[in-house]
Amino acid sequence: ESKKMLGGLTWGDVHHPSLSETGGDYDGRWLFVNDMNGRVARVDLRDFKTKQILGPLPNVSGNHASAFVTPNTEYSMMASRFSIPIPKGTAAGVDKYATEYKGVVAGIKIDPKSGQMSLGWQILMPPFDYDLGDAGKKVSDGWMFWTSYNTERATGKLEVTSTQKDRDYIAAIDWKAAEKAAAEGKGDTIGGVKVIDPKKVPGIVYFMPCGKSPHGVDVAPDGKWIVGSGKLQGVTTVFNFEKIQTAIRNKDFTGDEDGIPVLKYESIKDAEVQVGLGPLHTQFGPDGYAYTSLFVDSAIAKWKLGTWEVVDKVPMSYSIGHLTAAEGDTVSPDGKYLVGLNKLSHGRHLSVGPSQPESSQLVDISEEKMKLVYDAFTEPEPHYAQIVKADKIKPIEVYPKEENKHPLAVWDVKDAGATRAGNKVTVKMVVVRSTMTPTDFELKEGDDVTIAITNIEQTTDELHGFGLLDYNINIVVDPGETKTVSFKASKKGVYPYYCTN
Amino acid sequence: ESKKMLGGLTWGDVHHPSLSETGGDYDGRWLFVNDMNGRVARVDLRDFKTKQILGPLPNVSGNHASAFVTPNTEYSMMASRFSIPIPKGTAAGVDKYATEYKGVVAGIKIDPKSGQMSLGWQILMPPFDYDLGDAGKKVSDGWMFWTSYNTERATGKLEVTSTQKDRDYIAAIDWKAAEKAAAEGKGDTIGGVKVIDPKKVPGIVYFMPCGKSPHGVDVAPDGKWIVGSGKLQGVTTVFNFEKIQTAIRNKDFTGDEDGIPVLKYESIKDAEVQVGLGPLHTQFGPDGYAYTSLFVDSAIAKWKLGTWEVVDKVPMSYSIGHLTAAEGDTVSPDGKYLVGLNKLSHGRHLSVGPSQPESSQLVDISEEKMKLVYDAFTEPEPHYAQIVKADKIKPIEVYPKEENKHPLAVWDVKDAGATRAGNKVTVKMVVVRSTMTPTDFELKEGDDVTIAITNIEQTTDELHGFGLLDYNINIVVDPGETKTVSFKASKKGVYPYYCTN
Repeated sequence: ESKKMLGGLTWGDVHHPSLSETGGDYDGRWLFVNDMNGRVARVDLRDFKTKQILGPLPNVSGNHASAFVTPNTEYSMMASRFSIPIPKGTAAGVDKYATEYKGVVAGIKIDPKSGQMSLGWQILMPPFDYDLGDAGKKVSDGWMFWTSYNTERATGKLEVTSTQKDRDYIAAIDWKAAEKAAAEGKGDTIGGVKVIDPKKVPGIVYFMPCGKSPHGVDVAPDGKWIVGSGKLQGVTTVFNFEKIQTAIRNKDFTGDEDGIPVLKYESIKDAEVQVGLGPLHTQFGPDGYAYTSLFVDSAIAKWKLGTWEVVDKVPMSYSIGHLTAAEGDTVSPDGKYLVGLNKLSHGRHLSVGPSQPESSQLVDISEEKMKLVYDAFTEPEPHYAQIVKADKIKPIEVYPKEENKHPLAVWDVKDAGATRAGNKVTVKMVVVRSTMTPTDFELKEGDDVTIAITNIEQTTDELHGFGLLDYNINIVVDPGETKTVSFKASKKGVYPYYCTN
Repeated sequence: ESKKMLGGLTWGDVHHPSLSETGGDYDGRWLFVNDMNGRVARVDLRDFKTKQILGPLPNVSGNHASAFVTPNTEYSMMASRFSIPIPKGTAAGVDKYATEYKGVVAGIKIDPKSGQMSLGWQILMPPFDYDLGDAGKKVSDGWMFWTSYNTERATGKLEVTSTQKDRDYIAAIDWKAAEKAAAEGKGDTIGGVKVIDPKKVPGIVYFMPCGKSPHGVDVAPDGKWIVGSGKLQGVTTVFNFEKIQTAIRNKDFTGDEDGIPVLKYESIKDAEVQVGLGPLHTQFGPDGYAYTSLFVDSAIAKWKLGTWEVVDKVPMSYSIGHLTAAEGDTVSPDGKYLVGLNKLSHGRHLSVGPSQPESSQLVDISEEKMKLVYDAFTEPEPHYAQIVKADKIKPIEVYPKEENKHPLAVWDVKDAGATRAGNKVTVKMVVVRSTMTPTDFELKEGDDVTIAITNIEQTTDELHGFGLLDYNINIVVDPGETKTVSFKASKKGVYPYYCTN
């Protein structure tokens, strides 16, 4: 089942977890995570298991800007990091990049009861590199914001060619309008999904100019402000949602990109906050403070929403990327702690060869001055993380027997055993501390064998594994679960099975 | 290369790491680890990478009792957990278990310069379940000790059927004698390896009776004492190596198992130490103290070698299995700290669903009273671990350019690019912060493509990944390394590659 869910892909490159929300607050139901192959997985927080992987999505290449949910988990949003000619499989030379390559923004529909994801709709975008997104909340609910770089539509060495212009863009998308347009049948089917072209359906997408090479765009808890940070600057820009709406109403535009209006920067910004060099991402506290990671300065800046005053900085070791404050991207941040997710840790750990851990640093933000309290080491290339209050998550530790509807489940050793129909052998196996029943069974060469293993424990932490040597079979069965393995008895001999857990 | 090394197996179930030794002390060169599929891997501590995986070994099924090295890393030793008819592929019903199933002990030869492992020799053993081993050291150098259970040769529910006798055995093996016998051409070739039958070549194997269901057997730092703990007892037995030698000389036997003499328990033991219930494993300090994990009591007992006095106990949460003291299995234990590797942690961590972390607990052993100082959470089913002094390990963090002999390596972007010979395309790629050269290349459908990626960085922690979307390709290239990926250009379209690290 796991193999089928993974669809033959053996890597993912996960970047951004997104906890499900109700009213803009974590509700403890699901966790969505993206992978660069264009997929989103849903982890059920009832048992911490992946229940669905949707994708690879059509038309999206390089699914970095994902899996951001909207405030009531209506959608998990996705955008292209790498624009390509669409649908996938369309050939066009790199010299046609500016005109024939396209980005897309995808709204993945989420069933409010089951969490089941389905394709939804997409929006055709200019061939920029969409990096990160955040959904509007409260007053800005219904909107989605995306950073993009290489708005020059350059190719080759982007570090040089894509930094020619003064500004890149944050895309502001009225996703409720997009949803309505899709429901009305607008858009063209490309790669099996309805794709809305903003040139043909105006009023859905606008571009907000921002500092060069923006990474994060982060909406404040009350939804009034949108904070966008350009990596190549010393300031972070705070946009005012009301001013954005006014500029849209007044058509206060300075141009367009493929028919998408570009809003006038001066008309929509409230402030340029002098946070320091290389601002990337911003998280929020419960008291009107914002925390911005500074890649170049290798620090976190604490500043006040409204007064735009920078009140404190704490150094990070080294080159911080993302940061995460307790519920710091919701409508009700928790404060107390944040964690800096650093890209380099050299000198802070024992040498373990070329592949090195990076450092996460825990910062106490309960006082006016931030205080570094702990270093922990993590897997390389840390990206985003979220901190949720423990009491919002109440996982089960045992699957109740009455929930097990597996047709091959057996709950008593007297029902366990092997049955044969032609060359098909079905083994119903009971596992319980510390015995597997049957303890052995005989097969004929060439038999097609299915073993259904029921872990009849109803005690926490009593998982049992089933490993079959020389057949490359090993699975774990949780308390109350039944799982099956199948194989062909291709080899003569005696092959032990044992509990691997 | 990694896939080839793994030989198509997708799981391992690693249990016991074994650091290479010189004179019975860790020398910081290699780490050997076993897996249940009958393999041993060698990790080079110069760069913390797996350089060789030997196996699955012939005749061994269920490689639990491994990868223990001898005091000068002459051998990595292995023994069968599950006896089977040998060679593998021989069929015999479970009713023939006592006579036609065989265990083996395998001596894997290690090249003293390169660490390269090769098959060595094996010893035919009765069909017991061999669980753990430890090499003799100093006075007992040249000997190897193995615990075994189910010496009843029972089948079915072992928890019942295998605990009928009063005692199980520790096998004492004169491995230098086995090596000599193999060198002299003694033994029969079974499954492609020379197997010595102790019935035909006496003087190599002896059985020492010990408490029922022993797990660990641990040799004291000076090699004089061998500590064997039966899980179903309240004592651990200390055997005296000199007394064992005397008993062998005097033929002080009480019987035999398949021609292997059983030594008289009373003649070879020095003490039964009243450590507590469920003793499993013992580690040593620098000051004549021993530390024994107690599974049933869920505690660690500290006791004195020679006086056999138990001086302290510290509770573990919960159900401790292995434990590891700093260099605590060498000729010169370091003291200061030990870690208890516990099998259950319930109540000590937040709930994360059915699959739960277990707990490791750090204990300060520098004072007379042990002191629990820290809880950490680990992957399920912790087994053995070793603690080595950091200054013994000096890994490189960058591969020196002059060591790179890869024929497709290029060190200058001007040498990078794609060349074609028929439908074979070779791409020499240079990666360096933050560009891959070439930035793009065109292929024809059906081309056989090899990309050789050279990371020309000579700076630590500047690894670069190469991910090719829609082709399920992702590798990491360390500073100074060249690696290749190959694929067939089977799909029309534009497929981005990017740095995944």
